[in-house]
Amino acid sequence: MTNKHQWSPPWVEKVPEPGTFRSIFKWGAGDTFKHPNPGFLQIIAKELGLVEGDFKQPAFLGEKIVENRPCISFSQKDAALFESIVGPENCFSDTYARLKSATGKSMEDILNLRAGKTQNIPDLVLHPKNRADIEKIVRLCHEKKIPLHVTAGGSSVTQGLACPKGGVTLVMTTHMTRVLEFNETNQTITVEPGLMGPAYEDMLNQAREIFNAERPYTGGHFPQSFEFSSVGGWVVTLGSGQASSYYGDAGDLVVAQDYVTPTGDFKTLDFPATATGPKINDIMKGSEGCFGVLTALTLKIFPYFPEAVRPFAFMFRTFADAIFAVRQISRSGCGMPSVLRVSDPEETDIAMKMYGLEGTLPDRFMSLKGLKPGSRCLVMGRTEGEPSFSKNLFRQVKKIGKSNKGLYLTGYPMKKWQAGRFSDPYMRDSLNDFGVLIDTLEAAVTWDHVEDLYKGVRSHVKKTPGMILMTHASHFYTQGTNLYFIFITKMMTLDEFKAFQTGVIEKITALHGSLSHHHGVGRMLAPFLETHLGKKQMDVLRALKREFDPHNIMNPGALGLGRQ
Amino acid sequence: MTNKHQWSPPWVEKVPEPGTFRSIFKWGAGDTFKHPNPGFLQIIAKELGLVEGDFKQPAFLGEKIVENRPCISFSQKDAALFESIVGPENCFSDTYARLKSATGKSMEDILNLRAGKTQNIPDLVLHPKNRADIEKIVRLCHEKKIPLHVTAGGSSVTQGLACPKGGVTLVMTTHMTRVLEFNETNQTITVEPGLMGPAYEDMLNQAREIFNAERPYTGGHFPQSFEFSSVGGWVVTLGSGQASSYYGDAGDLVVAQDYVTPTGDFKTLDFPATATGPKINDIMKGSEGCFGVLTALTLKIFPYFPEAVRPFAFMFRTFADAIFAVRQISRSGCGMPSVLRVSDPEETDIAMKMYGLEGTLPDRFMSLKGLKPGSRCLVMGRTEGEPSFSKNLFRQVKKIGKSNKGLYLTGYPMKKWQAGRFSDPYMRDSLNDFGVLIDTLEAAVTWDHVEDLYKGVRSHVKKTPGMILMTHASHFYTQGTNLYFIFITKMMTLDEFKAFQTGVIEKITALHGSLSHHHGVGRMLAPFLETHLGKKQMDVLRALKREFDPHNIMNPGALGLGRQ
Repeated sequence: MTNKHQWSPPWVEKVPEPGTFRSIFKWGAGDTFKHPNPGFLQIIAKELGLVEGDFKQPAFLGEKIVENRPCISFSQKDAALFESIVGPENCFSDTYARLKSATGKSMEDILNLRAGKTQNIPDLVLHPKNRADIEKIVRLCHEKKIPLHVTAGGSSVTQGLACPKGGVTLVMTTHMTRVLEFNETNQTITVEPGLMGPAYEDMLNQAREIFNAERPYTGGHFPQSFEFSSVGGWVVTLGSGQASSYYGDAGDLVVAQDYVTPTGDFKTLDFPATATGPKINDIMKGSEGCFGVLTALTLKIFPYFPEAVRPFAFMFRTFADAIFAVRQISRSGCGMPSVLRVSDPEETDIAMKMYGLEGTLPDRFMSLKGLKPGSRCLVMGRTEGEPSFSKNLFRQVKKIGKSNKGLYLTGYPMKKWQAGRFSDPYMRDSLNDFGVLIDTLEAAVTWDHVEDLYKGVRSHVKKTPGMILMTHASHFYTQGTNLYFIFITKMMTLDEFKAFQTGVIEKITALHGSLSHHHGVGRMLAPFLETHLGKKQMDVLRALKREFDPHNIMNPGALGLGRQ
Repeated sequence: MTNKHQWSPPWVEKVPEPGTFRSIFKWGAGDTFKHPNPGFLQIIAKELGLVEGDFKQPAFLGEKIVENRPCISFSQKDAALFESIVGPENCFSDTYARLKSATGKSMEDILNLRAGKTQNIPDLVLHPKNRADIEKIVRLCHEKKIPLHVTAGGSSVTQGLACPKGGVTLVMTTHMTRVLEFNETNQTITVEPGLMGPAYEDMLNQAREIFNAERPYTGGHFPQSFEFSSVGGWVVTLGSGQASSYYGDAGDLVVAQDYVTPTGDFKTLDFPATATGPKINDIMKGSEGCFGVLTALTLKIFPYFPEAVRPFAFMFRTFADAIFAVRQISRSGCGMPSVLRVSDPEETDIAMKMYGLEGTLPDRFMSLKGLKPGSRCLVMGRTEGEPSFSKNLFRQVKKIGKSNKGLYLTGYPMKKWQAGRFSDPYMRDSLNDFGVLIDTLEAAVTWDHVEDLYKGVRSHVKKTPGMILMTHASHFYTQGTNLYFIFITKMMTLDEFKAFQTGVIEKITALHGSLSHHHGVGRMLAPFLETHLGKKQMDVLRALKREFDPHNIMNPGALGLGRQ
């Protein structure tokens, strides 16, 4: 069995040609690649009923050059007005730039680009130089009723960047990347929203050198898209980093925000707490560009103690045992691990293969202990923060794990996970090239519904034959967690895929999962939002939309606000 | 000097007669009294230029019976409609009930009641039996455009309960006090909003007996008004408890809320986190009854570890030294003490007298160490939570205190403070009886503005002769704290008092203090809100108001929404 699939597909390891569809949808750096290891590939082939022949020839590589297509919704004269604001060097009307700015990483985006489709793109792409440019652009769009969108890292998996009504898209990563204030006294930093994750984090780690600070800091926010997402994007979509259980979700990190909106500009109050009515800072979090353009934001920063990081891992007999243990950890009252992850049996078995643990001495020891494949669940994580805090929490976590019959596995699996955590998304392209689809959906859930949600979604998905479903919980709160579902199956047509996806989304929400935990809503989940929130709560969002954007120009259709 | 003022005023220790103004404004329980001790009284007399003769005869005791006055704004016929909803036993039109329901604990309330004034009261007081009653009442008020207010504990210090346009007031503490769900798995409890602090906390402490729970819990919310405020009131005004630095402010404790509003009813999502756009749960926090009536709320609860509480106290040489040290504690990265308090020199000197420490051996030792009256500052607090967490944090706090030249004073001052923390407000009535005014204002502030705010407000207030100003910081965040100002001076007329108060509020906000940290806005701070937030952010609140309450019937005038 192990030797049966020891063939290696001709993985594509070519830097995409400039101007091609592939250069837009490929994950991450053009010259970086990662492929499933033989153990993982073996599972995929087996579960999907694929054989060596299915991996002979990659297809739908999207190597065609993007052809130019005319603008749809506004005149050359209007285009000239925008160009005069940002300058010709920051104004692009070629279709490649327009397509790139409107594309995220949803399966729908990828299927369309692999099929060479050019749709839902803006008419003009602008790279604003500063806040003053943005003010002028927003005023002009408002006056002329031209749709306005914003992009930065382009990692949206919910079609948050699509432009079904054309208009303009602002690219924030070119100029809107400045540090406006580093305030060590308040332990905050104020930056422009286009700053990318690594630049942000590196700067904080080197605060002594760069800002003459007393010590190094961390931003504490590490989504899987960390390398290819922006600080502003984290906040406007309510993202969560992999260390959110200690540092908080993106929404928890934002002290204040500066917005330009069609009906007025403002900076929210930066007090640590206020009792002055509903907080506009909260109202803007997660607004996904539907109310205005975020031009600056003040974020909490944290003392950086890399030496205090303590990885841990356990194996539990069942998913229920694992969930019970992490719930105990989450309610212990002695702080939270930064990273904490529970893999279900299917993901655990794949992880054992990916981490090269399958068949090893530890694996045989686990089996002897009754921790069998198909049932056992890997729990791993790390504590961090101030050293004495991390040390104490680490001890308590170990105590809780062991008292709930978890087998302690040292920090090894966590170290393996850490090594791959930002590069795993590259595997998606490799598999897509051979007609294997990978996509994800995720939901928040209170503790009392975790098991029902897990089992219900799993039995629903498994009705479709040839479906790998890896599930994990990766963000922890005293009141609950999230479930993250990863589907691997044979490539479908877009219609088939959307029908499948709709079925899963409806199953999730019917079983008390939230419509989104940290992916946002965009246009993909928008059709489900009113059912999820109920009419009155949706009315509240619509009222806010009218107040900020009466002409419905701001990212129309996202969040289900303003018909597309 | 110490013996000079050893007279004892004839403090009023009479249970107020039923039906009197005094029975409405007196703090807390009718038969409970607390008076300044001789040391405190000595300072008051000295600073305010009072002598024994000034304390001979109490005055303006408000012992008059509240006389009945007719309704102002709606007919007997309308009154009958309301009565038919709640039943005659839950419907009151006598002026005493109406005045009581509209009165809080602001100095303005007290001055008016001591002067026997009856104003800004509703026409009818209703005690709704359940959510169905509230739905009917809200529909009826909306249809007939009758103002609708809600009261519970009546501890508002911002005229949040006044009814300048008449209408009806709902009293929530009679029937709306049920527990709807105790969910140990999610570590939440769902209650009706009229439940009072002690009933709520006792129930959680006795969760094993009452709910057959695995362990005891705490709600973690202990405002000074704890005994006389309701769970719902905490949330709709964004209150903060004295242990907020560990447990969070009221807004942090709310998982979900159930509202009846003029334009529709809803329950917000109870997920631990979501990325489904701006959160309606956030929007409703702090809405002060201006959008709808809160009918139920789900709150976080916490494991109760009374054995893990560790009190501590330090004396620092100056206010700046004390603030520096507590900032280090707040940013340590090893969790937060539950209670943490910094008293400025004036409050420290008074505390030394109140706690009987002045002139003792420890006092002389402090002076020898250079910790002199007029400059030294008391810092005290306690750690709690899971025992190993509390123990580690206590060690770190002591380390930080000592490394910043704080003299460790053991837990003694903290224990003294704990003993008096809920009874100190009784002293206000005692002093008011002798023409001594006590009032407070408070503000949130980022660390970089603490000292300027402190000095600026102090020098402004001290321009008025005969003014005691005690200042403390009592709620701590990584990004800042709050300053709480307590004024003691000779009684003024209402006009003089309001002019003084306006001057201080304007000084606070000019020096980067927030308009309110945890008192809320009500009608007292409403005139300052638009300047504080700016027009556009105020427009957002107005848009929400229009959406929920287009006829402007919900607590009109509070939060500056809907003209009074």
